[in-house]
Amino acid sequence: MTRADALALDAADPLAHFRERFAIADPELIYLDGNSLGRLPLATRDRLATLVEEWGTRLVTAWEDWIDLPTQVGDLIAEGVLGAAGGEVVVCDSTTVNLYKLVRALLAHRRGALVTDAGNFPTDRYVLEGLGRELRQFDAAPIEGPSADDVARVVAAGDVAVLVLSHVAYRSGAVADLHGIQAAAGDVPIVWDLSHSVGSVPTDLHANEIRYAVGCTYKHLNAGPGAPAFLYVRRDAQPGLRSPIQGWFGQAEQFDMERPYDPVPGIGRFLTGTPPILGLAAVQEGAKLTAEAGMEAIARTSASLTGLIVDYADAALSPLGFTLGSPRDPARRGAQVALRHPEAWPICRALIERARVIPDFRGPDIVRLGVAPLSTTHAELFDALERLRDLVERGEHERVDATRSRVT
Amino acid sequence: MTRADALALDAADPLAHFRERFAIADPELIYLDGNSLGRLPLATRDRLATLVEEWGTRLVTAWEDWIDLPTQVGDLIAEGVLGAAGGEVVVCDSTTVNLYKLVRALLAHRRGALVTDAGNFPTDRYVLEGLGRELRQFDAAPIEGPSADDVARVVAAGDVAVLVLSHVAYRSGAVADLHGIQAAAGDVPIVWDLSHSVGSVPTDLHANEIRYAVGCTYKHLNAGPGAPAFLYVRRDAQPGLRSPIQGWFGQAEQFDMERPYDPVPGIGRFLTGTPPILGLAAVQEGAKLTAEAGMEAIARTSASLTGLIVDYADAALSPLGFTLGSPRDPARRGAQVALRHPEAWPICRALIERARVIPDFRGPDIVRLGVAPLSTTHAELFDALERLRDLVERGEHERVDATRSRVT
Repeated sequence: MTRADALALDAADPLAHFRERFAIADPELIYLDGNSLGRLPLATRDRLATLVEEWGTRLVTAWEDWIDLPTQVGDLIAEGVLGAAGGEVVVCDSTTVNLYKLVRALLAHRRGALVTDAGNFPTDRYVLEGLGRELRQFDAAPIEGPSADDVARVVAAGDVAVLVLSHVAYRSGAVADLHGIQAAAGDVPIVWDLSHSVGSVPTDLHANEIRYAVGCTYKHLNAGPGAPAFLYVRRDAQPGLRSPIQGWFGQAEQFDMERPYDPVPGIGRFLTGTPPILGLAAVQEGAKLTAEAGMEAIARTSASLTGLIVDYADAALSPLGFTLGSPRDPARRGAQVALRHPEAWPICRALIERARVIPDFRGPDIVRLGVAPLSTTHAELFDALERLRDLVERGEHERVDATRSRVT
Repeated sequence: MTRADALALDAADPLAHFRERFAIADPELIYLDGNSLGRLPLATRDRLATLVEEWGTRLVTAWEDWIDLPTQVGDLIAEGVLGAAGGEVVVCDSTTVNLYKLVRALLAHRRGALVTDAGNFPTDRYVLEGLGRELRQFDAAPIEGPSADDVARVVAAGDVAVLVLSHVAYRSGAVADLHGIQAAAGDVPIVWDLSHSVGSVPTDLHANEIRYAVGCTYKHLNAGPGAPAFLYVRRDAQPGLRSPIQGWFGQAEQFDMERPYDPVPGIGRFLTGTPPILGLAAVQEGAKLTAEAGMEAIARTSASLTGLIVDYADAALSPLGFTLGSPRDPARRGAQVALRHPEAWPICRALIERARVIPDFRGPDIVRLGVAPLSTTHAELFDALERLRDLVERGEHERVDATRSRVT
């Protein structure tokens, strides 16, 4: 593996030209944390400026164009990214709030344990802990994995109300077997958290017979810090499901204000209060880029990029104490690679402070390298890995202030 | 009342210069719906552009500066606007979601009826209907008003879990007696919705002994469409109150991700998922303007502006069939005046389409004129009223397409 090999991979990458669609102020800064916060698309910068002017000039009358954004952007994500249909996705609130609404809505019809993966993203576990604490339903011994076998076993033991699982594990990047796990769960509802897969790993929700999902837009959909999340319910699962948070944006005939609550017929019933218009516009622009590139092409580029990390690590990083913390099979690996090392935290600090590489640290021992198939190049990834090797060889990570507290 | 009188009032208005701080593209367009969506402050336009660049250049590392915005902006609103203290307000989610969290948190400790004002804003009623439906606690015969006597009566009858009341009524603009009602409720918690008062009517939360409140930032705080809302809990009422939606931003030691949920000690426990950073920055800029002007000065200018509407309506609109739908006492009137007329809906359409005045319609018969003390001038208000009178005198409202559906 040489830099020339990496350049050749870029030359052959059909998505390479998408990099021009992003704001890249400093090409020497190598960004490998797009799975925490995606890059800024140029179209989004323009759209937000236009939208702010629209607020200033059209004032409240602009709501005529804004009011349908939650379902319009939902349709775009459903059809262009998730492999679902129009009318099945709405964009609003945060992943946390959407997960809460969906699990609580399901619990109106079911009792039993709330089961999740012990390694699931914290907010998913916290939401279930909160509901379980209130309803005395949380499973204290959540499954590991998850695999279809795990899920079949826990469901066969009985008394499971709802499962909440992540499609791509936030630490290892492991991809769960959507279709196999969904089949193993039978009639027990699974709410899938697609935060780490949407825009980087095909979800094919209809083909995989997925009924419920939520996910985040500020990672691989590049919608910006704290942009609103999405919520998916397959059309045939929508009737009878009511949001526990009844707000005026989920009300039929919203502006006939003197009536009792009557949820809108479709997915819009999961809207709550006034949706964040700046954030929605950013989601729309980000999702357009992903839909334009296409999820199959994105998955191929992603596998090529993460494959480069794995190959390089095998050859040049394992002698320095790194081990692979992600699946070796590219079909089972999201757009990120976990490199485990006992000094992962100071190594991450040193990469940021001394090598102009931005990775992410995930405790206790993971240097997480995320690739963005639309903007990361093989060449810069190779450069980042060279800088990582040099840095550890020279012991630079032993000279950073590793006591510094961390955010994100 | 002549235009010269209105110009004299502007000349004497100590807040008149604040109008220069807002984007006003077309001075001929008279905007009287700032209580649905406030105007764009120039500082906000600049701040949002800077923030988008910051996302593009600093990427995930900018979270170091963003992560405390929900409580920083909360402190600004608490101290500069609400008459509360730092550590008592957090900015996040929507008013709807915040109301849900706060009422549900209180219901962990109390059973009984959920009582609201029959004329309260729809989303407040819907949230309570949803909780009541689930918990079988909603009061089917809510109080009217509300007055301190109403509240004393309903509380004396017993079995009230939580009251939810608006400080300023969204239709009439009537201001509720915060201190008297709070005293009348005794130990029964009241969650106040300050959406229509924050930034236009002093709330003096500490002086009025208010313990719980939520409110909106996109009206008189000028934070833009769908900007995040706020949630207030007085410091002594915080211990023991847990959000039903446990998210990772409400977690102590947020980035020690392997622990069970443990809420942060203060008001931050009401955070849920990743907060919307663009919206938070806009709230900060809008709240800064309000804090700079000061709530006492804002209330004086508001009374002067709404007084002009009342005087004009008495003299020149009552002969055309308009009646006053707001309190005559300026101390009991928010920054809006309801003019009732049987043809209110076509009159509102005609004002927008033919007179370049933007009012708001509130069913069934209200032309709602909102004033923004920081940007509305007495002169333009006078002009708008003249246009309204001319329009109705000439019967122009009989020639608009009144079947057109409405938003906002």
